[in-house]
Amino acid sequence: MELVGKFYKQFCEYLENHALVGDPQNLYDPANYILGIGGKRFRPIAALLGSHLYDSNMDDALIVAHSIEMFHNFSLVHDDIMDEADKRRAKEATHIKYGIPTAILAGDVMLVEVFRILQKISNQSVSFNLQKIMADIAKLVCEGQQMDMNFETQSEVPILDYITMIKNKTAVLLGAAFKMGAIINGAPEKDAQLLFDYGVNLGIAFQIDDDILDSFGDPETFGKKVGGDIIQKKKTILYLLALKKEKKKLLDYYAKELDNVTGKGIAQHVEEVKSIFIETEALSSAKTLGKEFAQKAMNCIKELNLNEKSKLELQQFHELVLKRSY
Amino acid sequence: MELVGKFYKQFCEYLENHALVGDPQNLYDPANYILGIGGKRFRPIAALLGSHLYDSNMDDALIVAHSIEMFHNFSLVHDDIMDEADKRRAKEATHIKYGIPTAILAGDVMLVEVFRILQKISNQSVSFNLQKIMADIAKLVCEGQQMDMNFETQSEVPILDYITMIKNKTAVLLGAAFKMGAIINGAPEKDAQLLFDYGVNLGIAFQIDDDILDSFGDPETFGKKVGGDIIQKKKTILYLLALKKEKKKLLDYYAKELDNVTGKGIAQHVEEVKSIFIETEALSSAKTLGKEFAQKAMNCIKELNLNEKSKLELQQFHELVLKRSY
Repeated sequence: MELVGKFYKQFCEYLENHALVGDPQNLYDPANYILGIGGKRFRPIAALLGSHLYDSNMDDALIVAHSIEMFHNFSLVHDDIMDEADKRRAKEATHIKYGIPTAILAGDVMLVEVFRILQKISNQSVSFNLQKIMADIAKLVCEGQQMDMNFETQSEVPILDYITMIKNKTAVLLGAAFKMGAIINGAPEKDAQLLFDYGVNLGIAFQIDDDILDSFGDPETFGKKVGGDIIQKKKTILYLLALKKEKKKLLDYYAKELDNVTGKGIAQHVEEVKSIFIETEALSSAKTLGKEFAQKAMNCIKELNLNEKSKLELQQFHELVLKRSY
Repeated sequence: MELVGKFYKQFCEYLENHALVGDPQNLYDPANYILGIGGKRFRPIAALLGSHLYDSNMDDALIVAHSIEMFHNFSLVHDDIMDEADKRRAKEATHIKYGIPTAILAGDVMLVEVFRILQKISNQSVSFNLQKIMADIAKLVCEGQQMDMNFETQSEVPILDYITMIKNKTAVLLGAAFKMGAIINGAPEKDAQLLFDYGVNLGIAFQIDDDILDSFGDPETFGKKVGGDIIQKKKTILYLLALKKEKKKLLDYYAKELDNVTGKGIAQHVEEVKSIFIETEALSSAKTLGKEFAQKAMNCIKELNLNEKSKLELQQFHELVLKRSY
């Protein structure tokens, strides 16, 4: 999709020209590092697309996109510390490269930048509104991350709670990206809300797909090691759906000590758990659930007060996100 | 001072009535914990005092005070993780009580609340300005904390860099408290700036005194263990001033391994380092420096466009802060 490609390029250039500087500079290096190691830039592109639907002037849209991407990367820096994740985008996690204290502080200054960036928007009233939306979303994202951490020690996790968690932890930010981008270029309130709902539902669908691909994706194209969630005993949607039908067997597998299991043993373990996911129909249920949210997202597009060309652009973005490539 | 006592009580009540709530609540418990274990509340009182000088309506002033205290406590939660400090206000540090991941996340949500609180101010334009001031101050505070961490591995720390560090890390927030409080009740721009400078200089004087009291304070009244900075080998103003005159001897003392030294040995070590601080005149120089900043603060009061009664109230606050009691 040409438009998405154009926005991707435009945003990457903007990001390069807006590296964080300050004194001492080593406070800002981790921020520039995490922002510089790539990612698909779904969220800033969503902000640019949301803007583009209502006006061709993209100056303020780039500010919104920058703020959104800054927030997303702040959350990655801190989440990786909390989750003790050593890798991010196949590179060293920020706290591994710079140490935990500096990574905490760099995350803090990034969160402050989220607001400082939005304060650059020339229309003060619009800037105020966007800061309000951003702060409310930021609160939800923290709540989502806390829910996720709580799940680790929770024996029962209802599917609805799981959906709320992924909604807050990741999907609302995609919704906010669309909404904030649209607002900046004068979208009517109803459209702004529909675009928010669109992004949230697409984000949930994406996240459910992520859980599925982690176990059943093509190792060639998935980018991460297939089976990682199973090995790390994560409570994914597959695990939670399977648990409702095959409790004992699944719990036995997840109680196994895997630290000293060799490569071949691990591969076998992953395959056996995957079989449970298939036999219990957790896989097919998860796929259906993902499709339901994707459909909800598509329904939002239909209701927008936009011409068919614009709706087509949104649909194309939708497909590219779920295909995970553009 | 009756007024400060009144504000202290008023703010503590406000804080109790505005505990953070949300879902999951365990995200907010650490925030309520750190906000609930006391402190002198200098900063929120400064905001209330700054407001009171210009108008008797204190509704928005309490919002500003709340935001300032939220920010201060956010920084304590994260700093204690970075500095590996187990205690805060003679109680368990937040990350000791709740674990590091939840403490990081609670700090994050507190930083978000700083802005959400300011967004409650009814006049949108004033709210926007205060959010802008707050974000700029927050950036400085992060820079101050990073400078402080950098000093640990830096062999030479110029006195001026040290002053910049304490200014950014702690003093600007006191300045901002006065300024933001004053703005909310319609202070003229020149006064708002003078009150900022007043708070910054008072904050620097306070911090220099803090360094002095840590080594030379009365154990009965200081509240913390006297000599703590020496034992932890902190690069305080006393250390930096002494280092300029007695490098070798002081470095030898700070190179000593103290982990296995007993109580009596530690006490002797502290006394010997204190002797160096006296002999090199680091103590008297630090006292002079502190007095200079306190005087600068007093000069700001003189220039304010306020009546003598108001100026007297500021002077009384000034004295109470430096006496560390009210």
